[in-house]
Amino acid sequence: MKLATYKDGSRDGQLVVVSRDLSQAHYANGIASRLQQVLDDWGFLSPQLEALSVSLNHGKLRHAFNFEPARCMAPLPRAYQWADGCAYLNHGALLRKAAGVDMPENAALDPLMCQGGSDDFLGACEPARFVSEAMGIDFEAEIAVITGDVPMGATPGQALEGVRLLMLANDWRLRHLIPAELAKGQGFVQSKPATAFSPVAVTPDELGAAWAGGRVDLSLQSMWNGRKVGQCEAGPEMNFHFGQLIAHLAKTRRVRAGSIVGSGAVSNKDWSRGYSCIAEKRAIETLEKGVPKTEFMKFGDSIRIEMKGRDGLSVFGAIDQDVVSVHEPEAPEAGAAPGATV
Amino acid sequence: MKLATYKDGSRDGQLVVVSRDLSQAHYANGIASRLQQVLDDWGFLSPQLEALSVSLNHGKLRHAFNFEPARCMAPLPRAYQWADGCAYLNHGALLRKAAGVDMPENAALDPLMCQGGSDDFLGACEPARFVSEAMGIDFEAEIAVITGDVPMGATPGQALEGVRLLMLANDWRLRHLIPAELAKGQGFVQSKPATAFSPVAVTPDELGAAWAGGRVDLSLQSMWNGRKVGQCEAGPEMNFHFGQLIAHLAKTRRVRAGSIVGSGAVSNKDWSRGYSCIAEKRAIETLEKGVPKTEFMKFGDSIRIEMKGRDGLSVFGAIDQDVVSVHEPEAPEAGAAPGATV
Repeated sequence: MKLATYKDGSRDGQLVVVSRDLSQAHYANGIASRLQQVLDDWGFLSPQLEALSVSLNHGKLRHAFNFEPARCMAPLPRAYQWADGCAYLNHGALLRKAAGVDMPENAALDPLMCQGGSDDFLGACEPARFVSEAMGIDFEAEIAVITGDVPMGATPGQALEGVRLLMLANDWRLRHLIPAELAKGQGFVQSKPATAFSPVAVTPDELGAAWAGGRVDLSLQSMWNGRKVGQCEAGPEMNFHFGQLIAHLAKTRRVRAGSIVGSGAVSNKDWSRGYSCIAEKRAIETLEKGVPKTEFMKFGDSIRIEMKGRDGLSVFGAIDQDVVSVHEPEAPEAGAAPGATV
Repeated sequence: MKLATYKDGSRDGQLVVVSRDLSQAHYANGIASRLQQVLDDWGFLSPQLEALSVSLNHGKLRHAFNFEPARCMAPLPRAYQWADGCAYLNHGALLRKAAGVDMPENAALDPLMCQGGSDDFLGACEPARFVSEAMGIDFEAEIAVITGDVPMGATPGQALEGVRLLMLANDWRLRHLIPAELAKGQGFVQSKPATAFSPVAVTPDELGAAWAGGRVDLSLQSMWNGRKVGQCEAGPEMNFHFGQLIAHLAKTRRVRAGSIVGSGAVSNKDWSRGYSCIAEKRAIETLEKGVPKTEFMKFGDSIRIEMKGRDGLSVFGAIDQDVVSVHEPEAPEAGAAPGATV
């Protein structure tokens, strides 16, 4: 099934079930109003949502309405954890090579992972607001999972069983703030502003055979200002699968329902596939020509991130964001969602 | 007012108002069932809780019951953000000096801060479970605040206005896992297991004149296995006040209601005041004798952290935890709290 969270003026929004083709939606009220509720009580609530999903896909729901991604908050508008891995070794290797820094010796055995702020996520079509262009505004296209409860010390296999939902993420970065924060060694606080997520989160079965071994074997497209800059394969080069990432996080503590774990930028060794973040493009330019040529994003730029299934249809809907100055006044909120009062 | 969260078998527990002397409590139902609800709608709900608090302090509530810290979850059993600063420069300076590492040049201007997991906090009297003693189990006694909404780019003064509640924290660390994670530069994932918080969270007015300039001018006591090992002054040597810490976090993103921001280990230059974490004791031993003598905590050890007000009474109640192996079976849950069905 596919789930989304519609804006309703509240901090957590309203849970909706979305049809497989992303054309129709239906409120989940009567079952659950918020996605976190479902994650808290997955065994009891998810079968009820599945039943609603089947009826929606069969066109049997009288109060279904057209699904509008622009009305979406992040599937979890705020979460209790956001841990971002770096599962595509090529991403880290490329950035380090351009910076003249060696990869850690055990990089292929011990994943990099950082905590992000999870109090304020962005909806797929919400503008991303930044203080200044001078901070090196960059998108980062990746895959993320939402977990159930995972016990401390879980094996990668056990941890993989904890995957409840998958999404796309745009893990915004302020690249020029990263070197100073890396040097402090405490992780990314100022260089990792609010992350955006795809309109819908989907259960693994929606991916069919493309969900295998804890990886999504599909390609992730990134369009910057309308131009395709990346079509990266997410499956084969994911060095740590999601079970391994979650197990890394759970090594010394429990991981609780509703935790989000990210893959890090999807990245391929074959440069012809393009990039999922501008930092990689700049690293390639540095390696080829000695200096980066491509500039980071400017106010007014746009970024669209999408993944198509083997049937050619969008799996998660598109992340489609504009880069905006924090000083620009916010647009008035869209009116009440259709069907909200049904 | 003083607020606590009683265990009721749910993930978020039941909000209770606690009397100033920590002797009596009363359920907040009719106003709010969970603390996060109150933080989400502080302006509307907190005056109602204040009124309940006044009645409780005057002994006017028929359904008040004895307050039992052992029945407490963390005031926020899970939160949308846990950002831990390092506001007492002496702490970092001491640990680095013993390790033969210089402090960063701008350490007095730019606070260290890391994100912690906020999906699974421990109640004040809950055992802290660890995989292995060999990981270097250490307590870390500190002060933490819970914020309201703070806008991106807030000044320290504006950010300080966002402080809603204060607590004590025991920010458990696995010291032997820290060097490898510091070297990776991504922050602390495995070396920072679940944090515990004091039984009650209090509004700043409960501290009276001891809350000044964004600092708590009281001393923090740490008792390890019943022996007092620290009586550190929390006020004068807090180099960054809470407004500065929150503003650091809010520099490039909004900080949303219910975010927890920590001070880092309370630490004094005068070694005779003792320590708020064993790592400092070991650093002192290393500087004095070349090697650390004090070992980290063992299964069966206990740690008690408490802060007394100028009236001599416990402000937050005590954090009082045992160190337990994760392989030890969990004790059966305490029965339903008294008054739960009233």
